[in-house]
Amino acid sequence: MSYYDKHVFFCTNDRGAGADRPSCARCGSVELRDYAKKRIKQLDMAGQGKIRVNSAGCLDRCEEGPTMVVYPEGVWYTYIDEMDVDEIIDSHLLGGKIVERLKI
Amino acid sequence: MSYYDKHVFFCTNDRGAGADRPSCARCGSVELRDYAKKRIKQLDMAGQGKIRVNSAGCLDRCEEGPTMVVYPEGVWYTYIDEMDVDEIIDSHLLGGKIVERLKI
Repeated sequence: MSYYDKHVFFCTNDRGAGADRPSCARCGSVELRDYAKKRIKQLDMAGQGKIRVNSAGCLDRCEEGPTMVVYPEGVWYTYIDEMDVDEIIDSHLLGGKIVERLKI
Repeated sequence: MSYYDKHVFFCTNDRGAGADRPSCARCGSVELRDYAKKRIKQLDMAGQGKIRVNSAGCLDRCEEGPTMVVYPEGVWYTYIDEMDVDEIIDSHLLGGKIVERLKI
């Protein structure tokens, strides 16, 4: 069994303004990572055997971002706001049901 | 199939000197992440369908660190030098054989 049941990585890479590729931190990924982390803690679902929300460097799917990936299942998502993140948490992380509309 | 065949996350968290918990960046994780990334590129094994070496924030196994995790299999390692990283690359990432002596 995995150390974490669900290990979620939010790309928080920031290429700066005017870069030639988009970057997730320019699309609110840091704030939404914080939001997800806080919600998982409030739900008492953080920790070993449960869920871990992590920051990651560039996941190299910049044009499809902001991106996150959920392991061990290897499901990738994009999201734009707290409602999207809530749906990923409620449906996938807690309920085990992939959110097809946000998959990349 | 996963977007990456092996997705490797090196914790590169730095709590600073004198913190009450150890942190991976204080144990050379940034340099060894760079080393791994460079070797995977030189081997032409970087990219979609192959291997991705990533930085990550705190993976919360600080006392066992420096830590890395390989997904989708969810195998965790510690390492101390380039020889350890080479063994993980050659045996596990390229050969599919877990390095038992470095597992945590």
